[in-house]
Amino acid sequence: MAGRIVTLTTDFGTSDPFVGTMKGIILGIHPGASIVDLTHDIPPQDIRAGAFIFDTAHHYFPEGTVHVIVVDPTVGTNRRPILVQGPTASFVCPDNGLLSHVYRRAGGPVAEGEPFATSLVGLPRGWRAYHLTNHQYWHMPLSDTFHGRDIFAPVAAYLARGEDPGAMGAMIDEVTVFAAPEPIEVDGKLVGTVMAVDRFGNLVTNIPANALVRPNQDINIQVAGMRIDGLARSYAGSPTALLALIGSHGYLEIAAANRNASQILGVGTGAKVAVGRGVQLA
Amino acid sequence: MAGRIVTLTTDFGTSDPFVGTMKGIILGIHPGASIVDLTHDIPPQDIRAGAFIFDTAHHYFPEGTVHVIVVDPTVGTNRRPILVQGPTASFVCPDNGLLSHVYRRAGGPVAEGEPFATSLVGLPRGWRAYHLTNHQYWHMPLSDTFHGRDIFAPVAAYLARGEDPGAMGAMIDEVTVFAAPEPIEVDGKLVGTVMAVDRFGNLVTNIPANALVRPNQDINIQVAGMRIDGLARSYAGSPTALLALIGSHGYLEIAAANRNASQILGVGTGAKVAVGRGVQLA
Amino acid sequence: MAGRIVTLTTDFGTSDPFVGTMKGIILGIHPGASIVDLTHDIPPQDIRAGAFIFDTAHHYFPEGTVHVIVVDPTVGTNRRPILVQGPTASFVCPDNGLLSHVYRRAGGPVAEGEPFATSLVGLPRGWRAYHLTNHQYWHMPLSDTFHGRDIFAPVAAYLARGEDPGAMGAMIDEVTVFAAPEPIEVDGKLVGTVMAVDRFGNLVTNIPANALVRPNQDINIQVAGMRIDGLARSYAGSPTALLALIGSHGYLEIAAANRNASQILGVGTGAKVAVGRGVQLA
Repeated sequence: MAGRIVTLTTDFGTSDPFVGTMKGIILGIHPGASIVDLTHDIPPQDIRAGAFIFDTAHHYFPEGTVHVIVVDPTVGTNRRPILVQGPTASFVCPDNGLLSHVYRRAGGPVAEGEPFATSLVGLPRGWRAYHLTNHQYWHMPLSDTFHGRDIFAPVAAYLARGEDPGAMGAMIDEVTVFAAPEPIEVDGKLVGTVMAVDRFGNLVTNIPANALVRPNQDINIQVAGMRIDGLARSYAGSPTALLALIGSHGYLEIAAANRNASQILGVGTGAKVAVGRGVQLA
Repeated sequence: MAGRIVTLTTDFGTSDPFVGTMKGIILGIHPGASIVDLTHDIPPQDIRAGAFIFDTAHHYFPEGTVHVIVVDPTVGTNRRPILVQGPTASFVCPDNGLLSHVYRRAGGPVAEGEPFATSLVGLPRGWRAYHLTNHQYWHMPLSDTFHGRDIFAPVAAYLARGEDPGAMGAMIDEVTVFAAPEPIEVDGKLVGTVMAVDRFGNLVTNIPANALVRPNQDINIQVAGMRIDGLARSYAGSPTALLALIGSHGYLEIAAANRNASQILGVGTGAKVAVGRGVQLA
Repeated sequence: MAGRIVTLTTDFGTSDPFVGTMKGIILGIHPGASIVDLTHDIPPQDIRAGAFIFDTAHHYFPEGTVHVIVVDPTVGTNRRPILVQGPTASFVCPDNGLLSHVYRRAGGPVAEGEPFATSLVGLPRGWRAYHLTNHQYWHMPLSDTFHGRDIFAPVAAYLARGEDPGAMGAMIDEVTVFAAPEPIEVDGKLVGTVMAVDRFGNLVTNIPANALVRPNQDINIQVAGMRIDGLARSYAGSPTALLALIGSHGYLEIAAANRNASQILGVGTGAKVAVGRGVQLA
């Protein structure tokens, strides 16, 4: 699965040269690589946000893309660096739950338990995973704090160049997955969770578009004690009203036209959002 | 007009993976594309700032460049997605006035009326415009909120790859342009407008260098009740004084050496700046 | 020394299109260039921070890389634009001390005097430097304020394309270097200086890993009146304690697990850090 595209998703920000350094390592190994930044503004060390945000984006890339994801609060401990290959793309990251949504999107087994509790589960059918252990594919000497540069970047470059992942470490059968909160029905309402807040203050939930009857606008959305009647088709609209709409990532989103919904409502990630039937008459 | 370079100018920021997603779509269609970020920090939904800032940069790119500009507050309404071809570059964007300064730079007809009022006007001589309607060049299903990913990115990739724009939609004769404030003479002074505030707090006006007699430093600049005597040649200078100089984009700019002129003066976009003759003697 | 990779390090930020404009100029001259952003968030006009941060990153790039560094508070004065060639990489920047750490890393002569005082010194053995004066390699007309676009970007592009640097200006024997604070021994302690604060609030000192006996954890670190016993191996650890560790750039760093050490301690660049022997018994 050789290719040119390597994407990078991290919590490093772009103020420090860490990301640039990773690119230097990649281009030294695979000069023809086409490196794309997905985002480097994952909230620091927030695996849950990183997992969700990455999952809204990776599937827009062409076949053969190698994705590097580094949100790695336990770097330097014994958490495993892994390489995971699906039928159309590869993923290089710490084995800490970052691929939980990716596995689920591919129909893999899901983790049981409290929301965000982690466990080891099998891979989606047809997928392979490797525990990265072969130093020959790393940038040495290995630092204790920057495996993005020393392990994940060079492994991704070798993989994109066409090297055999089987030489990079032993195949493994189970990977770390966290139990993601799922929308549930309570008293006839669908109750979901805010998974991320975007730059405009829009609240992104885990309620997918296909959980709502698209042509039927006869729903109301409740969040933070407020009620929104019906779905909007775009951010344009009343300059003051809160809006609910299907965002560009395919999930129900709470927005405020030209304003910051998160600030207006005083809530963020983890807040509950309930969708009920029936628009309230004024 | 096939080429490799596609530039991106948006108000999406880089904290979310929206821009990365657009790049995934582009590289899937045109793997050899060289994608350049102009800026993704246009103030959200500010068409006027986006139009001005984009116009200070696009003409430094080589012939054949395809520019994507997405500041799109009315996405999801009936505003037209368009592709515009000039003699040396192409532009893909919503038809909402974003190219007003580009058309004017090319000698196109200007809009009449109050500053920033929009109207439909003809194109510069030799330019062509297309109303994008052919779904075959889009990423489907089309979302209501993210035409940057679903229309503008794929159309730009196909165009850069060498596809015929005539297949993407019908040719149109008129495009949306806003009436840009022009510097005017009032009582022997040239009065312009602050069009943008940059990261350092410098105030960028619409007074072009060639409206001032360069060798003649015998002018004064008035802004926010303050008076600046003469033009500086660089940002170096008195550590406390306000400076007026010709910025790197070719327009008169108000700066403060090592400080933030916008904060010091308490003004921003839209503020008036007057240039008079005669340096006041102390 | 023709190559594809051109890196950019500036204090321009990415909110304005200045960096994008430099890339347009580079790609117009060398369409095959692979341009990598190291960082554009050097504190504005802070040559000292720029010099240190750039030096932590450039050596991870492959042979033949051309590095452009623009932190240029005296642009428009008579400071020289220069091109410097070492045995494996080239550097294009204003001659204002930005390469002080690069020269020192290469074993070049160091500047004497008070910390950060500048002087002209010779180059490392085998290195060459050129005073850029030939307008044929510039983007004309030359602006007074943006030599990043008008001199450094095009010179880097021509150099990466394989042009002879000897045609771009006269060879020079001495370049501007500042006297960097060096760790010194005081009363049996090694006293260094905080050179930069990263995005997570970690304090990066000028004490290199090899100044400490790695296997020997029997040291204590004093900073801002606080004392840290021993070196940590990673950021994981006590959620409240301050940590001292060798950062990914190879220097002693003060961090706080999941928190901002700079804010907790109330210190930043320039603060003194002392390393002593002996861990205090509780």
